Amino acid sequence: MKTKVLTLAVAAALLPTTSAWAAPTISDLEARINDLESRLTTNEQQTQQAESSASAFEFHGYARSGLLMNEHRTGATDTGPYMTAAGDLGAPVGRLGLEDTNYLEANLIHNRKLDNGSSAFFKIMLADGVETSNDWTADDSDLNVRQVYAQFSNLPSFTGAFENSTVWAGKRFDRDNFDIHFLDSDIVFLAGTGAGIYDVQMSDDWKANFSIYGRDFGSVESAGTDVENYVATMNNHIGQWQVMFSAMDSKDNEDVTDDSTATHRAKHGLHALLAYHANSFYGLQDGWSKSGVLIGSGLGAQLKAIGSDGNLNDDAKAVRAFTFGVKDINKTWSVAPALMAEYSQDRIKDNDEFKWGTFNVRVSQTFTENFEMVYEGSYQYMDLDNSVSSAKGSYYKATISPTLKLDTAAGFFERPELRFAVSYVDWSSDLDNYSVSTATGASTMGNGGETLFALQMETWF
Amino acid sequence: MKTKVLTLAVAAALLPTTSAWAAPTISDLEARINDLESRLTTNEQQTQQAESSASAFEFHGYARSGLLMNEHRTGATDTGPYMTAAGDLGAPVGRLGLEDTNYLEANLIHNRKLDNGSSAFFKIMLADGVETSNDWTADDSDLNVRQVYAQFSNLPSFTGAFENSTVWAGKRFDRDNFDIHFLDSDIVFLAGTGAGIYDVQMSDDWKANFSIYGRDFGSVESAGTDVENYVATMNNHIGQWQVMFSAMDSKDNEDVTDDSTATHRAKHGLHALLAYHANSFYGLQDGWSKSGVLIGSGLGAQLKAIGSDGNLNDDAKAVRAFTFGVKDINKTWSVAPALMAEYSQDRIKDNDEFKWGTFNVRVSQTFTENFEMVYEGSYQYMDLDNSVSSAKGSYYKATISPTLKLDTAAGFFERPELRFAVSYVDWSSDLDNYSVSTATGASTMGNGGETLFALQMETWF
Amino acid sequence: MKTKVLTLAVAAALLPTTSAWAAPTISDLEARINDLESRLTTNEQQTQQAESSASAFEFHGYARSGLLMNEHRTGATDTGPYMTAAGDLGAPVGRLGLEDTNYLEANLIHNRKLDNGSSAFFKIMLADGVETSNDWTADDSDLNVRQVYAQFSNLPSFTGAFENSTVWAGKRFDRDNFDIHFLDSDIVFLAGTGAGIYDVQMSDDWKANFSIYGRDFGSVESAGTDVENYVATMNNHIGQWQVMFSAMDSKDNEDVTDDSTATHRAKHGLHALLAYHANSFYGLQDGWSKSGVLIGSGLGAQLKAIGSDGNLNDDAKAVRAFTFGVKDINKTWSVAPALMAEYSQDRIKDNDEFKWGTFNVRVSQTFTENFEMVYEGSYQYMDLDNSVSSAKGSYYKATISPTLKLDTAAGFFERPELRFAVSYVDWSSDLDNYSVSTATGASTMGNGGETLFALQMETWF
Repeated sequence: MKTKVLTLAVAAALLPTTSAWAAPTISDLEARINDLESRLTTNEQQTQQAESSASAFEFHGYARSGLLMNEHRTGATDTGPYMTAAGDLGAPVGRLGLEDTNYLEANLIHNRKLDNGSSAFFKIMLADGVETSNDWTADDSDLNVRQVYAQFSNLPSFTGAFENSTVWAGKRFDRDNFDIHFLDSDIVFLAGTGAGIYDVQMSDDWKANFSIYGRDFGSVESAGTDVENYVATMNNHIGQWQVMFSAMDSKDNEDVTDDSTATHRAKHGLHALLAYHANSFYGLQDGWSKSGVLIGSGLGAQLKAIGSDGNLNDDAKAVRAFTFGVKDINKTWSVAPALMAEYSQDRIKDNDEFKWGTFNVRVSQTFTENFEMVYEGSYQYMDLDNSVSSAKGSYYKATISPTLKLDTAAGFFERPELRFAVSYVDWSSDLDNYSVSTATGASTMGNGGETLFALQMETWF
Repeated sequence: MKTKVLTLAVAAALLPTTSAWAAPTISDLEARINDLESRLTTNEQQTQQAESSASAFEFHGYARSGLLMNEHRTGATDTGPYMTAAGDLGAPVGRLGLEDTNYLEANLIHNRKLDNGSSAFFKIMLADGVETSNDWTADDSDLNVRQVYAQFSNLPSFTGAFENSTVWAGKRFDRDNFDIHFLDSDIVFLAGTGAGIYDVQMSDDWKANFSIYGRDFGSVESAGTDVENYVATMNNHIGQWQVMFSAMDSKDNEDVTDDSTATHRAKHGLHALLAYHANSFYGLQDGWSKSGVLIGSGLGAQLKAIGSDGNLNDDAKAVRAFTFGVKDINKTWSVAPALMAEYSQDRIKDNDEFKWGTFNVRVSQTFTENFEMVYEGSYQYMDLDNSVSSAKGSYYKATISPTLKLDTAAGFFERPELRFAVSYVDWSSDLDNYSVSTATGASTMGNGGETLFALQMETWF
Repeated sequence: MKTKVLTLAVAAALLPTTSAWAAPTISDLEARINDLESRLTTNEQQTQQAESSASAFEFHGYARSGLLMNEHRTGATDTGPYMTAAGDLGAPVGRLGLEDTNYLEANLIHNRKLDNGSSAFFKIMLADGVETSNDWTADDSDLNVRQVYAQFSNLPSFTGAFENSTVWAGKRFDRDNFDIHFLDSDIVFLAGTGAGIYDVQMSDDWKANFSIYGRDFGSVESAGTDVENYVATMNNHIGQWQVMFSAMDSKDNEDVTDDSTATHRAKHGLHALLAYHANSFYGLQDGWSKSGVLIGSGLGAQLKAIGSDGNLNDDAKAVRAFTFGVKDINKTWSVAPALMAEYSQDRIKDNDEFKWGTFNVRVSQTFTENFEMVYEGSYQYMDLDNSVSSAKGSYYKATISPTLKLDTAAGFFERPELRFAVSYVDWSSDLDNYSVSTATGASTMGNGGETLFALQMETWF
C-alpha cells in the first residue's frame, strides 16, 4: 500500500517535462533497452555480412587513354617512351606527352579469410593496349590475361622463419618489382608462370624471397615455337638494401633461328641487382630516392624484364645504373629527377656495343586544389654499334602539361589525372635512319623536330 | 538508513513483472545504455566502411543472347535491324525477333569521393558480339574494350559557370547520346578518344557541353591504315531543346583508296542536330516523346555515328528526321511508335541519291505481373540509287512475342526480358539483289518471305 | 513538497558509484534511449543499403595456372588429361600433374530481388586458356565469353507445378551438368544458346527440366561455316535417380566436307543418360558416389558434350558407363576412385570400332592444417580401330603431389591448392604413332616413358 503511493510520488517527480502524457517507468525503459539490444545484435551481424561480402571482392586497375596529334594534325603513332633508336635496348625517355596508346589493367581479386587469421588471395589481371581512337576495337584488340595466381598468408603450419611468409603459385608480376614511373620503365620486371615464397625471415633485418618463373620465347600458338626459359631467383631485403640474384636456363634456345637472330643464342643467363631504398631524397627530408646497379650475362643481359628475351648472344654482357627520387620542395613545387644508363656488348651479334644514358626531370607547380602545371624535360645520349653499322647522338624532349586532379596536395602519384600536354621532341639527324636490329626493313626513328599535342587521362587505384 | 529503505521500496514498486528476480536500478539501465552507445558507435563506423567499399565498385551492363531459326530449321544469320539494302546507310527496321547475335557490354566502375563532395569516376566497358551459339567462342570472339575514361565532378576549383560541370578524358560514348531502342539505332552516337566538359551553365536554362573526339578510319594494327579524324562538338541543352554542332577534320583521308571508295573522299565535315525532348506523348500524359532533325555534309553526312565513316564524298549531303515516343494507354496496353527518314545525295559517288523512311510501332499487352504479349510492326520504304544502279521498294515485318518479366507494370524498358518471338518478314523483289555498295560481290538482301522463330534474353542494369 | 524530498532521496539512493557528479533521472535515460533508437534506425537502413549493394554483385571463378617441365628441362605441352590416342574420343586420364595450361573462368553476376521474393539472376562468364608462361599473351589469347544468360526465380505468376521452377534464356552451361573432377571430364556437358525451365514439379519426388539449346558446327566467322544443331532435352530427377533424354536435329550437316569427315555425316541424334546420385560411398558413410550409363546414336554419339560434334557418322553408336565417389576413411586418409569406359562403332567412318576404359584413384594424406600429400594413379586401356588402321594398349600414370591448402580438413574439394607434383607416364609402344583421325598429319601420342615436374595453383570460388 505505502510503496504504491511512494511509487506514484516518485514517478510524478521523475515526469520528464517533454513527455506528453504519463511518466515512463523503469520497466518501460528496460523493455526499450531489451528491444534495442536485440535489434543492435541483429544489425551487427548484418553489418558483418555486408562487410565480408564487400571485402571478398576487390577491383583495382591502371589505365591511360587519350589523343596524340602532331602539328600536321595527324596521328603520331611512332611516339612513346621507347621511341628512340635505343628503345629496342630498353632505353626509355620521359613519357609525359608522348603516349598514344589506350592501355588498361583491370584486376579482379577474390579474398578469403579464416577466423584463425590465415587468408587466401586470388587475382586475375585483364589488360589491353590499342592505338586506335575508335570505340569498337575488335580488330585491334590485345585484350589478354596477364596475371592469374593464388597466394596464402599467415598459414598456421608456417612457423619459425616462415611465420610471416607468403606462398604463391600461378602467373604473376613479382610483388617486389618497382619502376621509374616517369620513364614507364621498371627497374626489374620479373614475371611469368611459376611459384615462390615471400618474406622468409633469415635474420632480424634480413628477409628473402625465393621463386621459380617460367617464360616462353616467342608465341606458343601463333609462332609455333615453344622454347621455355626457367628463372630461379633469390631476392633479399636487408634493411634498406636489396640484393637480388637470378639464374636462368633455356635448353633449346640455341636451336631457334630467325633473320635477326643472335650470333649464338644463349642457353644460360645470370642476373644481379643491388639497390638502396632511401627514406629521404638523397639526405633531404620530405622525399625519397632509390639507386642501384644491375648486371647480367647471357640470357641475363636483358636487365629489366628478367629472362624474357631469347635473342641474346651467349656471351652478352650488360650493366645498368639508375637513380631517381621525389622531393616536395614546398606547397607549390615538387621535383622528380631520374637517371638511367646502360652499357652492353656482344649483346646480339659478336662485337656489337651499345651505350645509352637517359636523364629525365618532372616538376609540378600547384595552383589550386585541383589544378597544377607539370613540366618534364628529357635527354638521352646514344652511342650504338650493332656490329654492322653505328650511330651516335642525342634525343631531347620538353613538355608542359596543364593537369587536373582531385587533390593536388596529395602529390606526384595522386590519380586520376586529366591532362593537356604540348611537347617538342628532336634528335641528332645521325640517328634518323639507324636501327639496332640488323633485320632488313627494321623500323627506324625517322626525322625529329616534331611538336606533339596530347589529351590524356591516367589513373590507378 | 531511511533512504536505503525507501530505495528498496521503490525498487520493489518498479519491479517489472517479467523480471525473474531483482529490479534493475537506474544505474543498471545506465550501464546498459552506455554499452549500447559504444556498440552502436562501432557498428556505425563498420557500416560506413561496408557502405563505402561496396559503393566504390559498380557493375552495370547490357546483354542480349538467344537463338534465331527460320522455317527451314536453319540459322538465319543475315537478319537484324540493319538487314535491308538501306541498312548500309544506317537505315534500321524494328529489331524485335530479328537478332541472332549474342552481344554484351560489361561496365566495371570505380568511384572515389572526397569529403568536400568532389568525386572521381572511372569506367571500363568490355564488349563482345558473336553469332555462334557455342559456349567456347575463342575463334569468333570480338571481345574488346569500348570505353576507358575518367571524369571529375564537383571540383572546388570549378566555380561560376563551371560550378556544376563535369570534366573527362579518355575513350568513351558521349554521355548525351540517345537512341530509339526499338530500332537499335542511336539518334546520335558520338564516341571515340578525347576530352571534354559537360554542363557549363551558359545562362539560367542553358547548359553546354564541349568536347574533342578522335576517330580512326580503318584499323590501325590489322589494316595498317591510320587516318585520324578529329571531331569538335558543342552540345547545348536549352530547356527541353537540344542544339548540337560538330565540325570534323581528317587531313589524310583523301589519300585512302579501296575498291568501293568515294569519288573524292572528304577531308572535312559539318554536322548539326536540333531535337525537342518532350515530357508528354505529343501532348498526352503518361508518356514522353522526342523529335528532331539532323543535317550534315562531307564527313558529317554520317548523321548517327558522328565522324566514324571515312568513305564519304567531299560534297556528300544528308538530312534525317525522327520522332518517337512511349505512351501507357492503360494498365494493360502501352504503345511506342517511331519514325525515322533520311535523304542523302553525292554521298559516296557523285550523283548517287538515297531516300529511305522507317515506321515502327511496338505494342505491349500485359496479362499478369510477369507475362505480357509484345507486338511489333515495321515498315521501311527505300529508293536507292548508287549512281550505277538503282532499286526501289518496301520492307515489311510483323512480330508477336510472348514475354516474361520480373514486373510487367514497370513498363517497356523493364529488363530482363525472356522472350519467344515469331516474325514474318518480306520485301519487294526489286530489292533482292541490290547493294548500296558498288564493290564487286557486295552482299545483298537476298529473297524475302521468311518466317523467323526467336528465343532471346535481353537485359540491362 | 514532500515528493520533492522523496525524489532527491531516491535519486541519491540510485546514484551509481561510477557517476562523477549527479544521478541521471529516468527522463535523462529516456532521452538517451530515444537518441539510440533513432541512430539505430538510421544505421539499420544504411546496413540494408550496404548489404543489398554488396549482394547485387557476385564474383565467382575457376582457375588453374602453373609450370610443367619434363626431365629434359623443356616444356611438355603435349600432356594433359586427354593426351592419349583415345583422347580424341573424349577418353580422359587422371589430370593431377599433367596440366600445362593457364586456364580461368571469371563469372560476373548481377542479382535483382523484388520484395515479393521473385528474383532475376544475370551471369557473364569470361574464360581463357593459354599454354604460354608469359605475362603478355595477346598473340595466344583465347579470351572469350562462354556464358551470358538471365533467369527468373519465384515468379508470382508461376503456380502449381511451376511454382518453384526457374526459367532462363541466353548462352549457358546447363545447371545440372556434373563432372568427375579428377579426370577433368563432365559426365554430361550440355551447353549452348537457347532457353529452358528447371524444376517443374511433375509429382511429389519428380522434378523435370526442359530446354532447347542451339550449337554451331565449326566457327561462324573464321571457318565461314554455320551449320546449326538444335538439341531438345528433358532432364528428370526422380528421388536420387536422374533420367535425361536429348534429341537433336542439324539439317545441313550432311553437306559439310573436310579431309577427315565422317562417311555420311549425321543429321539427327538421340542421347540418353541414366544416373544414380548416392549419398553414401557405395553404402559406406562419410562419402558419396555417382554411377550411370550414357547411350547415344548419330549426333548423339558424342556422349559428354551433347550435340557439339558434327563429324559423326549417321549410324554412329556409343555407350558409356561411369562410377566415381569420394570417401573420408579417417582424419588422415581420403580416397576418390573413378571408372569410365566407352564402346563406340561406325562412329566416324563405317566399320570403325573404339573401346577404351579408364580407372583413376586419387588419395590424400593429411599432415597438418595446411599440408597434405596427394597421390594419383591412373590407368587407361585402349583398343582403337579407325577402319583404316588399329592399335591396342595401355597407358599408365603415377603422381605424387605435396599440396598446400588453407584448411586440409575441408577435404578433397577445398581450394585454392598450391601444389608441386612429380609424375611418371608411360604407355604401350604400339600406341606411339597411332591417331584416331584418318586426316593426314594428325597428331599422335609420340613416345612414352616421361617424368613430369609440375608447379601449379588451382582454385574455385
